[in-house]
Amino acid sequence: MNVLLVYAHPESTSLNGSLRDFTVQRLQAAGHTVQVSDLYAMKWKPVLDADDAPQRDPSQPFHASLDSKRAYADGTQAADIAREQDKLLWADALILQFPMWWFSMPAILKGWFDRVYAYGFAYGVGEHSDSRWGERYGEGKMKGKRAMLLVTTGGWESHYSPRGINGPMDDLLFPIQHGILYYPGFEVVPPFVVYRTSRMDEARYAETTAELGLRLDELWSARPIGFRQQNGGEYEIPALTLKDDIAPDLEGFSAHIR
Amino acid sequence: MNVLLVYAHPESTSLNGSLRDFTVQRLQAAGHTVQVSDLYAMKWKPVLDADDAPQRDPSQPFHASLDSKRAYADGTQAADIAREQDKLLWADALILQFPMWWFSMPAILKGWFDRVYAYGFAYGVGEHSDSRWGERYGEGKMKGKRAMLLVTTGGWESHYSPRGINGPMDDLLFPIQHGILYYPGFEVVPPFVVYRTSRMDEARYAETTAELGLRLDELWSARPIGFRQQNGGEYEIPALTLKDDIAPDLEGFSAHIR
Repeated sequence: MNVLLVYAHPESTSLNGSLRDFTVQRLQAAGHTVQVSDLYAMKWKPVLDADDAPQRDPSQPFHASLDSKRAYADGTQAADIAREQDKLLWADALILQFPMWWFSMPAILKGWFDRVYAYGFAYGVGEHSDSRWGERYGEGKMKGKRAMLLVTTGGWESHYSPRGINGPMDDLLFPIQHGILYYPGFEVVPPFVVYRTSRMDEARYAETTAELGLRLDELWSARPIGFRQQNGGEYEIPALTLKDDIAPDLEGFSAHIR
Repeated sequence: MNVLLVYAHPESTSLNGSLRDFTVQRLQAAGHTVQVSDLYAMKWKPVLDADDAPQRDPSQPFHASLDSKRAYADGTQAADIAREQDKLLWADALILQFPMWWFSMPAILKGWFDRVYAYGFAYGVGEHSDSRWGERYGEGKMKGKRAMLLVTTGGWESHYSPRGINGPMDDLLFPIQHGILYYPGFEVVPPFVVYRTSRMDEARYAETTAELGLRLDELWSARPIGFRQQNGGEYEIPALTLKDDIAPDLEGFSAHIR
């Protein structure tokens, strides 16, 4: 299988650098082909702007989504965007590795999605009708592919527990796992999270990589998070609210998981 | 009062540009002093990296938080970071204005926090003991200041409702309002959200600015979101989970709001 690892950490000689190398080696040893997009090393441009649609009419106002749509459709996008889209199309699985900064991904990775996820590629795909609202949330160009997050944080696991002060890790990751990965069709397997990174020693590192290794071995067999398909009959269209008889007592992120 | 408006949109002749101008004028007309950090116009560098601590020892590995700590303490941070910190210290209120991209802020704004929120400035502040876990979540350098989000999105309001497919807007914004703004001490007033931006016409724009104007008038009198103070006696320390008798039936983001 083909795996794209998108890696967003500024220092190679770090815990994240070691976990990246471990991940690549483990997947290769199992016979998979791995490409790494090391965003810091690539000096990835994170800011979506008019330069991303170099053929646009500069006398007109820049429109982030419509200019993205035209550039994607015409094949005139910035070359670095097109290259990353090709990697996504090539991949059978995507792994996003990043340190959690301010309860989300580092800016350089956010800007990878802002730019690579073009209109017509990751959103604005498919027709809208009485029974379908585009191809998204379980459909789309990434359908049939899998994705997994590999996240590190300095905080304690209890701080991210169901009643922990930061909010539950699953809820903090919902906008990424559901809103960014499931949206264009990825099946998302549970994240691998390393807490309290400042307290890593050799014994704990050995334990961590042993667990991570198993998770990588199970990348294609693990049960994905059971997000509900938008066009699967459980949502009203076009309101896109859950039908009254679906999880009738639930509200919020958890209502969208079977 | 002093208001800092941090604005993250690539095109001035846009709905966001108009709402920015409206906001500045409304606040000025009420006698407030406004500074705008227009991140696209400033060509803000969004990527936190070793260049942000220019006096560090380049033979040593870059450590995002420890190098940030040293550079902040020594007064050797990159000049653009120090300038934005000064604006935050000057401000009585902070308004963050951005289009929601992939259920979060654009990369350029995320990178403003990644860089400006230095160790010792926005986190790693205060002592840890049996009764306190640093000055955060209701304490910190931003205590006494207010913050508000001004967010636009192409999606429909129902898509962001309690049972809407994107997840409730309040929950999507929790990592920003609680994890980024309340964390160093801001009191956060409810966000102003404009939905379905592609369907804006003159009548709706007039309505929108009328509502926004009232919200700006009430910036100092509105009731903030009732986030619980970390060191206020409701959390176990150091686990930072809610004590058993606090909102005993709740889990998740909502448990942290009184």
